[in-house]
Amino acid sequence: MEGETQRWQAIAGRKKQIQRDLLSLYAIRETQREDLTNPTDGATFSELAVKIRRGELKCEDLLETLIASLTEILFDNALNRAKFLDNYLLDHGQPFDVEGFDSTIGYVGRSFRPALRDSALVEMLQSLGAIIMAKTNLPQSILWCETENPLWGLTTNPLHSGYTPGGSTGGEAALLASGASVVGWGTDIGGSIRIPSHMMGLYGFKPSSARLPYRGVPVSTEGQEHVPSSVGPMARSLDAIHTVFKSLVELKPWDYDARCAAIPWREDIYQDAINRPLVIGVLFDDEAVRPHPPITRVLRSAVKVFRAAGHHIVDWNAQLHAECVYTMDQFYKVDGGEDIREDVRAGGEPFVEHVQKLVDCGDPISVFQYWQLNKRKWELQQLHLEKWNAIRCTHGDKPVDVVIMPPMPHTSVPHRSCRWVGYTKVWNLLDYPAIVIPGGNVRDLDISDAWSFEPRNVLDKWNKKLWEDNREVMASLKLPVGVQIIGRRHADEMVLAAAKVLDDILQAST
Amino acid sequence: MEGETQRWQAIAGRKKQIQRDLLSLYAIRETQREDLTNPTDGATFSELAVKIRRGELKCEDLLETLIASLTEILFDNALNRAKFLDNYLLDHGQPFDVEGFDSTIGYVGRSFRPALRDSALVEMLQSLGAIIMAKTNLPQSILWCETENPLWGLTTNPLHSGYTPGGSTGGEAALLASGASVVGWGTDIGGSIRIPSHMMGLYGFKPSSARLPYRGVPVSTEGQEHVPSSVGPMARSLDAIHTVFKSLVELKPWDYDARCAAIPWREDIYQDAINRPLVIGVLFDDEAVRPHPPITRVLRSAVKVFRAAGHHIVDWNAQLHAECVYTMDQFYKVDGGEDIREDVRAGGEPFVEHVQKLVDCGDPISVFQYWQLNKRKWELQQLHLEKWNAIRCTHGDKPVDVVIMPPMPHTSVPHRSCRWVGYTKVWNLLDYPAIVIPGGNVRDLDISDAWSFEPRNVLDKWNKKLWEDNREVMASLKLPVGVQIIGRRHADEMVLAAAKVLDDILQAST
Repeated sequence: MEGETQRWQAIAGRKKQIQRDLLSLYAIRETQREDLTNPTDGATFSELAVKIRRGELKCEDLLETLIASLTEILFDNALNRAKFLDNYLLDHGQPFDVEGFDSTIGYVGRSFRPALRDSALVEMLQSLGAIIMAKTNLPQSILWCETENPLWGLTTNPLHSGYTPGGSTGGEAALLASGASVVGWGTDIGGSIRIPSHMMGLYGFKPSSARLPYRGVPVSTEGQEHVPSSVGPMARSLDAIHTVFKSLVELKPWDYDARCAAIPWREDIYQDAINRPLVIGVLFDDEAVRPHPPITRVLRSAVKVFRAAGHHIVDWNAQLHAECVYTMDQFYKVDGGEDIREDVRAGGEPFVEHVQKLVDCGDPISVFQYWQLNKRKWELQQLHLEKWNAIRCTHGDKPVDVVIMPPMPHTSVPHRSCRWVGYTKVWNLLDYPAIVIPGGNVRDLDISDAWSFEPRNVLDKWNKKLWEDNREVMASLKLPVGVQIIGRRHADEMVLAAAKVLDDILQAST
Repeated sequence: MEGETQRWQAIAGRKKQIQRDLLSLYAIRETQREDLTNPTDGATFSELAVKIRRGELKCEDLLETLIASLTEILFDNALNRAKFLDNYLLDHGQPFDVEGFDSTIGYVGRSFRPALRDSALVEMLQSLGAIIMAKTNLPQSILWCETENPLWGLTTNPLHSGYTPGGSTGGEAALLASGASVVGWGTDIGGSIRIPSHMMGLYGFKPSSARLPYRGVPVSTEGQEHVPSSVGPMARSLDAIHTVFKSLVELKPWDYDARCAAIPWREDIYQDAINRPLVIGVLFDDEAVRPHPPITRVLRSAVKVFRAAGHHIVDWNAQLHAECVYTMDQFYKVDGGEDIREDVRAGGEPFVEHVQKLVDCGDPISVFQYWQLNKRKWELQQLHLEKWNAIRCTHGDKPVDVVIMPPMPHTSVPHRSCRWVGYTKVWNLLDYPAIVIPGGNVRDLDISDAWSFEPRNVLDKWNKKLWEDNREVMASLKLPVGVQIIGRRHADEMVLAAAKVLDDILQAST
């Protein structure tokens, strides 16, 4: 037992030593925790691309300014590519396989087992001229909204080391927020792209699962098909999200990955939505956990600017959300924790607390029972489609184009205090595209909000206390607050269009 | 035990009595077994639609000529609709729920449990003006390529009562071949649309699974997501197949069924393929079971006419087929037969022989092991995509547009002698669209084919004997022989285009 403990620590130690050695070669500046400025002098993603194409900005210089705290270091590869590429994309992979490098996904047992082949995403990004720079940290099992594992440790929020940057793509979010990356990639099966984006003031897009390729992306519970995980981009601008998503879809992901659907980029849907009044459903409260005052205020101001710009607002409701969350939670337990337990056992490291709970979930169910659960899921998916069809705008009896709602009931919080991802995970069970864009920040005025109500349940109570205990710090840090925009399944272009409409108004008003 | 036996027989007896009573109301002519003529005087599907629209043909008259041997009888409904509808589609459902009628799917235990709501397909077809006429027979468990169950009995081939019409959609195929229906619908998870179409000289299309709606279609092993079953049409003309498929896709199935993908009808792909030389891969033998001489001769003549029309022919190979079949067979066993056993137990009827084998498949595997099998499936799907990308035409280095191959290693055969569906089921694991069109018939000249070879395995030996024992009867019956045309996943429009090209040439030559 003793020997076992030493073995996983030795492996983690070797991984960290390699990380330090590689980083030291590039004379890294200390990550400045309060520095959220973009090293590219505020240029947009498209402007950056033009600058590089014109030779006004050298990829090599840009890359050197971006290097910061990372797990798998691909700088040699990246700089070599930068030196000869007339290039426009800079990029990080997270669990995405890059030939010759580990995809540890936070497990000690996956260390020193370099990938034999690039993932489809890496292959496609490189064919677009991308430079893959590094891999970043995520939580043990990936299935969590904070970022901690025994291999690499705890990832902290650059705004306050006692706070989480969210998860699972927390390392990437911290990096992007520090300006040390241009586009990051995550996988989202419950909020893993959207939650860290929300917490770090970023744009994060979870497309419909069949739109971007998953080939060569190791995850936990791999092989399950009950709830699809989506690959998607994170960035400091919507322009970057739009450009990478559209460019990848135009490469026909279905020619690279057998699991992608042959749905082309539909510019007609995008242009139509950009140029007409949208019908927007609004959900303030999922009836489980009431969002903190700044979350509600930011959403209310988004509604206000949408309405002022001539868009139609419709009340949405949380019907089916509880059933969806319940069904998702049933799915987490189907294998009795065997998949995660196997991976942790292989490395010998201890379980992080919430992962321990996840694997101590009782006995596995039978394949036949598992099918009955799938039937319940299909029923919920069907009922939600019918709900979407049924809710109409009084103006012209039109259905809703997108729904806007909070990404979480709170902002970034002190480490290990997250408990509720109901606002994001519903859209994974339904496989609807959803984006988070920055909507504002916690302000001093939020503290004066009385926010007095009787908690409806233990989670509601927990979240209320979270605000009462931390609101002064949250306001002093001006923590970012995101807005989540959701579309029907496969209506990814619609979601990007609605995000563009809102983002343009919000940008113009600041 | 005695009482139990009597109970299922009593239920089956009541179902059959209701069938007879309803049929007798409409003074049905005896189904003429050798009569394959269309009661609509050789009009094409589109011509029929025009005739009805112009009032030259009354739906009511047409319907009355079509009524024949069916399971669930919807004539009152159908005639009532026919009387007031200026209509153009006639149609049968198989396991598809129709409100107020049973979907027994061949199980006694599902008798007298009428559906509460129309299936999405029925709802969409009716919105297109279709008249739903009846439901037809299929095998116990559905998972078989012949049509027999204790509830309704054995469905025979109208060409010879000792021969099978195939399955699972055997009742529908027999009906269509007798001219007693215009369009039929089946579900295909291993060949259930294509096999009976091939055996009965029909057109049968298994689209990519996400293109047509599955909502309200009870099947066995429902809830499984490991191998998708596809909904698709069967008819006596390609025109009918094309019209119903396109019309349904244009109704946006994804607005009716949460499991459909938002892939519109892509006329551009269809038109492009219709108007240029195609690149066609040809597979004569799957390296497991060698097709009978008429199957090979018909495929060879299809190749010949394609080539003569200026299309490019490329050798295809059976690489990955054995692995796909093996993996499919593993999936059949994952629940240890629990799903089918439950359904049969509920009715108390005996197992049909091959279903008994299916449920006696050993212990169920764990959910975790099941996920490992899914990973193997994804790997095969990816390898097959890469195989498709890699095989190029020497003329212009183009990839293959479609593959043509036999639908089965034999034609219709004596009851209970089918054993190999490897030619069709591979495309279910891969979820590629595949159509079967009539290519010819068994002829006397096939008997003189020496067809001497050393069987490669027990199945190959069985199939050889099947020919030797039955070739004279097969030739005297002029049994139909189909050609199977397969496209990449979601390339349904391409498959329909290639079918149109081949069908036009074959029609012109006869």
